[in-house]
Amino acid sequence: MPEIRQNIITREWVIIATERAKRPEDFARAAADRVSPPRYVPTCPFCPGNENQTPPEVYRQPSSGPWQVRVVPNKFAALDSSAELSRNIHGLKRTISGAGIHEVIVETPEHDRVTALLSEAEMAHVLETYHRRYLAVTSDPRVAHATLFKNHGVRAGTSLEHPHSQIVGTPIIPPGVRDRMEHALRFYDENGECIHCAVLADELRDRERIVAQSRDFVAFLPYAALTPFHMWITPLRHTASFAEATPEQLADLAGLLRTVLRKVYFGLANPDYNITVRTPPSEARGLRYYHWYLSVIPRVTRVAGFEIGSGMFINPSLPETSAAFLRGAPAGPA
Amino acid sequence: MPEIRQNIITREWVIIATERAKRPEDFARAAADRVSPPRYVPTCPFCPGNENQTPPEVYRQPSSGPWQVRVVPNKFAALDSSAELSRNIHGLKRTISGAGIHEVIVETPEHDRVTALLSEAEMAHVLETYHRRYLAVTSDPRVAHATLFKNHGVRAGTSLEHPHSQIVGTPIIPPGVRDRMEHALRFYDENGECIHCAVLADELRDRERIVAQSRDFVAFLPYAALTPFHMWITPLRHTASFAEATPEQLADLAGLLRTVLRKVYFGLANPDYNITVRTPPSEARGLRYYHWYLSVIPRVTRVAGFEIGSGMFINPSLPETSAAFLRGAPAGPA
Repeated sequence: MPEIRQNIITREWVIIATERAKRPEDFARAAADRVSPPRYVPTCPFCPGNENQTPPEVYRQPSSGPWQVRVVPNKFAALDSSAELSRNIHGLKRTISGAGIHEVIVETPEHDRVTALLSEAEMAHVLETYHRRYLAVTSDPRVAHATLFKNHGVRAGTSLEHPHSQIVGTPIIPPGVRDRMEHALRFYDENGECIHCAVLADELRDRERIVAQSRDFVAFLPYAALTPFHMWITPLRHTASFAEATPEQLADLAGLLRTVLRKVYFGLANPDYNITVRTPPSEARGLRYYHWYLSVIPRVTRVAGFEIGSGMFINPSLPETSAAFLRGAPAGPA
Repeated sequence: MPEIRQNIITREWVIIATERAKRPEDFARAAADRVSPPRYVPTCPFCPGNENQTPPEVYRQPSSGPWQVRVVPNKFAALDSSAELSRNIHGLKRTISGAGIHEVIVETPEHDRVTALLSEAEMAHVLETYHRRYLAVTSDPRVAHATLFKNHGVRAGTSLEHPHSQIVGTPIIPPGVRDRMEHALRFYDENGECIHCAVLADELRDRERIVAQSRDFVAFLPYAALTPFHMWITPLRHTASFAEATPEQLADLAGLLRTVLRKVYFGLANPDYNITVRTPPSEARGLRYYHWYLSVIPRVTRVAGFEIGSGMFINPSLPETSAAFLRGAPAGPA
């Protein structure tokens, strides 16, 4: 029988539609849909030698010699980094000037690399760069919240093959972020405990939704995972904001994220996916009631009218089955 | 310069990214992507003659002779109509048995018809059926909320070509629905007015986001439309719930919905889209502070990591420009 589960942190309800269940391997990308891009593309703005096709870089690693990671303002930025912040309330219409920061993090000079197949050192450089740019972007007085994310593949919303991530610093805090924080605060007031820490303790006891674990982080499918293979990677020690992650934690996360992405890559034949860093507003550090995490969402199903109209999700797989599949999936070529 | 707009009803913020703006016609479906299905498909469970491939029908129109509209339980139902309702709270885990109703509304016997090209009488029969089944599904004591929706095309989440809609009656009320109602109630308490009626008055005064209007309804792009061509079709007279729509209103809506879908079909070359009926929980009728509507969402852009991670949207088009385009788009073949 299907069941409906709630994620106690996000309050989202998910229909676990076991009657529609497919086997985990049925979600793998079809062979016909696999592409092998070339190592270098003359028209790609992120390939070495084409640096003049992007706005001037704001960060690079290493600082001299050929770059390995490069950060540039997005040429087609959603927000304007030179705009003044102003708010206009005209009757029922609320408008804020589109002031903010939108950068692209080029993860590797090689066009045909796949993020999952970066070396552990390369992955660590990418996460270090995430952290540095998060601190830089949120230090802008116009920025209230920053969203770090990666779109891998067309179904995940990108048409650019060259491996890259993005950061967008917005002058407003999304209402969904505020709602989650209020909910977490209420839980803290009632239970004297961070809601994420409580769920984490539960998951570490159950173990059946855990995919992989490192010294400082654990990767698991939430009890009410929205889609097959939807994972959270959460710091084991209570930490409110991504801003507070230490270099040691980031290096440890690089290893675990790489393992998780490789399991997805080899287990599901390189599906499209999104990664997002879920962290509170930039002013919120050291909170006892909130906890940052990283979300990995393979895009193996589609959002349809039911999800749009209800805000609920239908997940055609049991999170425990998906977790067992990924636990057993190889983190390297067979 | 880009601007960030808020939908005062949903509280959602949208970046109107004018720097990325495309012309409205650039969102049209590419010629290579157009398909012409056959009139009859032997393996299609919704084609006449194949009625035995579906569970027994729960409704049909007309009641005798060949059917024009047919409603059947979904063969791969997300919820179980024979299950007992039970709630299980085990520590932090909230689970409800998957009891509920999931039906398919087959809109026409002809496999190759497109909903937009139904006659006005046919469209009226579909909406009458929506209403009847909404009343029937929400009369089940296990159902707390029903979501009516349509997925047109693969990008909108369906792989079945035969024109159909769906209704899902769930035993829980989605938190997003509750949140909107609370917000509307607060607005009512503070302003003595339904928030939808207030926005409607604003839109009817501005007129620049209106696409089409009938005696009883108006179709417009919200000030903070989430995506290009995202439309709301709202009853002009205050009505809380879809359950309260009269036969005359439904007939009037059929004409306007048909006009809107035909403008989308001819203006954008038959893009994939979702329709959802946004209505309060089934117990909520006659409320002074809430107002049902129908949402039409052409799927011409993709939800990516930014939207998933922030809950905000980036709309690469100005709602006023999209509305002007649809106002001018033909509602019939050129």
